[in-house]
Amino acid sequence: MTSKTFLLKELAEFVGGELVGDGDRRIAGVADLEAAAGHDITFLMKGGQEALLQRTRAGAVVVPVGVDTDRSAIRVKNPALAITKIHQRFLEQEFVAGGVHPAAHIGRECHVPAQVSISALVVLGDRVVVGERVRMEPGVVVGDDVVIGDDVILMAGAVIRAGCRIGNRVVVQSNSVIGSDGYGYVQDEQGRHVKRPHVGVVILEDDVEIGANSCVDRATFGATIIRQGAKIDNLVQVAHNVSVGEGCLLAAQSGVAGSTTLGRGVVLGGQAAVTDHVALGDGVMVGGKAGVAGSVQQGVLSGYPAIDHRTWLRASSAFSKLPQLVKDVRDLGKQLAELLEEKKGTKR
Amino acid sequence: MTSKTFLLKELAEFVGGELVGDGDRRIAGVADLEAAAGHDITFLMKGGQEALLQRTRAGAVVVPVGVDTDRSAIRVKNPALAITKIHQRFLEQEFVAGGVHPAAHIGRECHVPAQVSISALVVLGDRVVVGERVRMEPGVVVGDDVVIGDDVILMAGAVIRAGCRIGNRVVVQSNSVIGSDGYGYVQDEQGRHVKRPHVGVVILEDDVEIGANSCVDRATFGATIIRQGAKIDNLVQVAHNVSVGEGCLLAAQSGVAGSTTLGRGVVLGGQAAVTDHVALGDGVMVGGKAGVAGSVQQGVLSGYPAIDHRTWLRASSAFSKLPQLVKDVRDLGKQLAELLEEKKGTKR
Amino acid sequence: MTSKTFLLKELAEFVGGELVGDGDRRIAGVADLEAAAGHDITFLMKGGQEALLQRTRAGAVVVPVGVDTDRSAIRVKNPALAITKIHQRFLEQEFVAGGVHPAAHIGRECHVPAQVSISALVVLGDRVVVGERVRMEPGVVVGDDVVIGDDVILMAGAVIRAGCRIGNRVVVQSNSVIGSDGYGYVQDEQGRHVKRPHVGVVILEDDVEIGANSCVDRATFGATIIRQGAKIDNLVQVAHNVSVGEGCLLAAQSGVAGSTTLGRGVVLGGQAAVTDHVALGDGVMVGGKAGVAGSVQQGVLSGYPAIDHRTWLRASSAFSKLPQLVKDVRDLGKQLAELLEEKKGTKR
Repeated sequence: MTSKTFLLKELAEFVGGELVGDGDRRIAGVADLEAAAGHDITFLMKGGQEALLQRTRAGAVVVPVGVDTDRSAIRVKNPALAITKIHQRFLEQEFVAGGVHPAAHIGRECHVPAQVSISALVVLGDRVVVGERVRMEPGVVVGDDVVIGDDVILMAGAVIRAGCRIGNRVVVQSNSVIGSDGYGYVQDEQGRHVKRPHVGVVILEDDVEIGANSCVDRATFGATIIRQGAKIDNLVQVAHNVSVGEGCLLAAQSGVAGSTTLGRGVVLGGQAAVTDHVALGDGVMVGGKAGVAGSVQQGVLSGYPAIDHRTWLRASSAFSKLPQLVKDVRDLGKQLAELLEEKKGTKR
Repeated sequence: MTSKTFLLKELAEFVGGELVGDGDRRIAGVADLEAAAGHDITFLMKGGQEALLQRTRAGAVVVPVGVDTDRSAIRVKNPALAITKIHQRFLEQEFVAGGVHPAAHIGRECHVPAQVSISALVVLGDRVVVGERVRMEPGVVVGDDVVIGDDVILMAGAVIRAGCRIGNRVVVQSNSVIGSDGYGYVQDEQGRHVKRPHVGVVILEDDVEIGANSCVDRATFGATIIRQGAKIDNLVQVAHNVSVGEGCLLAAQSGVAGSTTLGRGVVLGGQAAVTDHVALGDGVMVGGKAGVAGSVQQGVLSGYPAIDHRTWLRASSAFSKLPQLVKDVRDLGKQLAELLEEKKGTKR
Repeated sequence: MTSKTFLLKELAEFVGGELVGDGDRRIAGVADLEAAAGHDITFLMKGGQEALLQRTRAGAVVVPVGVDTDRSAIRVKNPALAITKIHQRFLEQEFVAGGVHPAAHIGRECHVPAQVSISALVVLGDRVVVGERVRMEPGVVVGDDVVIGDDVILMAGAVIRAGCRIGNRVVVQSNSVIGSDGYGYVQDEQGRHVKRPHVGVVILEDDVEIGANSCVDRATFGATIIRQGAKIDNLVQVAHNVSVGEGCLLAAQSGVAGSTTLGRGVVLGGQAAVTDHVALGDGVMVGGKAGVAGSVQQGVLSGYPAIDHRTWLRASSAFSKLPQLVKDVRDLGKQLAELLEEKKGTKR
C-alpha cells in the first residue's frame, strides 16, 4: 500500500506509548492479527486476549496497559486510538492535484483553485466556491451557489444541492443527497397536498462525515445544520430544520424528523428515530431501533416509545412471560372468587 | 431571491383573507419570524403565540382567525395554506427552456420538445417521450420507452428505468430509483434462488412527488402504481405490484411490501411498514415505526404488530410497569396460597 | 416482447411437468391471469383457486399437482418455479455487445474484453478488470483495482469502490454503493471522533444480487463478504466486516451491523436488524422489524429484542390487554387485602 517505514520507537513516541522490546524494528504497515506479516504492526484492543498474540506473524503489536508480552510492542492506554493514529500516519500522503478533468462541467462564475481534483463527469452549477485540496469523484453534482471548504471529499454520485454550505474536511460518501427538499405539504380546500417552498439550505460544519445513500433535507426557512465533527452513517434521514449537535453519532438507517434538535454528542443507534419538534439534551444515547417520542434532557433510552434503557431491559425480559401472567392472574381471580363465595356461604 | 412585489391588499385578496391595517404596504418576499425584514411578510401558525409577533421586523404577517394584532396583517382560517400560496406566488416564474445540453445523451427515436431543460450528463434511452417544460438535472438516467408528462422535474441522479410512465407535474428527487426490479425469487430443486422476471412497470400519476434515495420497484406483471397526488418522502421502499392511493403520504424510511394496496389518503409515519398482500382502507393512519401485519379497513394504528393507536398508547404506558406487575402477581399468589393453606389447617 | 414461440409440449418437457390437453398449442409469451391473451401461458400458484381460471383468456396454464382443469395445461409440483423457468426461457437472449461507448471513461491499464456493453457516462478507474458479457448502464462508477466477473450487470448509478471484487452473474441495481467506508471512529483525548482507516474491501461472490440504493461497507481490514447466491433487497445496510452466508435473503430496509456473521440461508424480513459482533446460525429466520441483539444458533425470531417467534406472537397478542391486567391485579390486591383485614378483625 505504501513505501513508508517507521522505527517502532518512532511510532511509540508518536502515540505517547511505552516501548517494549526492539525499538529499532522497522515497521512498514498496519494489519490485523491474522493478516499481519513480519514488517507490520498489529494490535490487541483489550486485555485477556493475549492468546491471540501467539499466532500472529506481526513484527510488533500495540497492546493495552497491563498486558505483558514478549513481543516488541507499544503499550498504551487506548490501543484503538493509537493504532488509528499510526495507521493514518502510514496512509497520509501529500495531496496530488489532478486539476479539473476536461469531461467535468463547471458552471459560470465558479471559484475553483488549482489545488483540486475534480474528476470526469462532475457537474458544478453557477457561482460555486471550491476550497483548497478538494476531491470530487465522478458523478458528483453540485448545485448553484454552493460553498465548499478546504480538504473536502465528495465521493462518486454525491449530490450537493443549491445554496448549501460545506465546511472544511467534510466527507460526503457516494450517492448521498445534501439539500433535498424537505417533506412539507399543506392541505388545500380540496384536500390536495400543496408543497411548501423550501428556501432554506443545509450547513455541514467542519469535520462532518456523511455516509452513503443518506439524505439531509434543506430547511423550509433558514438552515438544517450538522454541527462540527458529527458523523452520520449510511441510509440516514435528517429532515428539514433539524440541528444535529457537535460530535453526534447517527448510526445506519436512523432518522431525525423535522425541526428536532440534538445536543452535543447525542448517539442514535441503528434504525433509531426521533420524532419532530423535540430536543434531546447533550449526551443522550438512543439505543438501536428505539423511537424517541418527546424531548429528553439526559439518559440512555430504548424501546418505542423510548424509555429509560434499564427499565426497558427489565420490561422487555418480562414481555415473553406476559401470556403466563395473564393466565396466572385469571387463576388467582378464580381462587379468590371461590374463597369469597365459600365465605359468603359460611356466613349465610 | 426575487424582484417581484405585491401590495398587502393584493395578497389578502389572493388568499381570500381579511385585510388588517395598511393594505398599500408593498411586500417583496416571505420569511420566517426571525429572519423577516421590513419588506417581508411572515406568519403565525396558530393562536396563543402572539408574543412572537413582538420581535419580528416583518412588514406584515399572516395570522389565524381570532388573533388580534396592531400590525398590518392578513387574517385567514388556515395560515399555513395561505403563506404557502403566497410564497409559491413569489417564487413562481416563467419556465426558461435551457434546451438539451450538448453533453446530454439522447437515444434513438426519442420525442423531446423544444421547451425543456435537459442538463449535461443526462442519458435518455431509446423511444423516450418527454413532455413540455420538463427539467432534468445532471446525472439523470431514463431507460428505454419511458413516457414523461409535462412540467416534470427529475433531480440530479434520479433513475427512471425502462418502460415506466411518469405523469404531469411529477417530481422525483435526487438518487431515487423508479422501476428497480422487484425482489422476487423462487427456490429451485437445489435450494438456489431463481430470479422471477419482472416485466411490469411503474406508473407515477400526476402530481406525485418522490423524495431522495427512495425506491419504487417495477411490477412482476402489470404495474406498481403511485396514484395522483401521493407524496413520498426520502429513503422509502415501495415494492413490486404495490398500489399507493391518491393523496397518500409516506414519511421517510417507511416501506410497503409486495402487492399491498393502500387506499386514498393513507398516511404512513416515519419508519412504518406494511406487510405484503394486504389492503389498508381509505384514510388509515399508521404511526411512526408501526408495522401493519394484516388488512385494515380504517382507524389509526401504532406498534408492531400494529393495533388501535389508543389501545397501544395505554398498553405502552403500562409496559414499563411489567416487572412490577410480575412481582405483584407473585406476591398475591403467595398471600393467597398462605390464606388457603391456613384455611385448610383450620378445617383439619 | 419477444418473437420466440414454443409448443406447449416443449415447455412441459422443459420443466418436467405433466402435459394436459393440447400439446401442440403454440405459446408466445408469459402473462398473469388477467393480462394473458390467447397465445400466452399463465399460472395458478396454488390449489383452491381454480375459479380464477374461468376468466383468463390465456392459451395454457401452469397448475399445481392436484388441480384439474379442462384447459391446456402443464401440471407441476412447483408452479412458481416452472413459470419462472419458462418465463426466463422466453426472455433469454444472446448477449449483444455494445462495446465501450465513446462517452465512457476508462482508466489506465484496465482489462476490458470486446464482449461487453459499457454505456455513456460510465467511469472506470485504473487497473479495473472486466469479465465477459458485462453490462454497465450509464452513470456507473467503478474505482481503481476492482475485479468484475463474467455476465455481471451494474445498473445506472451503481458505485463499486476501489479494490472490491465482484463475482460472476452478479447484479447490482441502481444507485447502490459497494465498498463505502465503514462507520468506525475512535474518540481522541479531546473527545473528537477520529476516523479509523478502512483498508479492506467488499467481495460479492457469484450470483449475488444487490437491490437499489443499498450499501455494503468495506472492511476495516480484510473483507466484507456476501457469499454465493445471497439476494439483498433495496435500501439495505451491510456494515464493515460482515459476512452474509450463501443464499441469504435480506429484505428491504434491513440492516446488519459491523463484524456480524450470517450463516447459510439466513432470512431477514423487511426493516429487521442484527446487532454487531454476533453470529446467526444456518437457516435462522428473522421476522420483519425484528431486532436481533445476540448470537442465535437456530430458529425463527421476532420482536425487539428478538425472541422465539411463537412466544412473541403470544406475548404480542397479550400486549393490548396489559392495561386491563394492571387493573385486574390492583382489584385482586384490594379484594385480598380486605379479606386479610377482615380475617384479622375476626381474630381480634
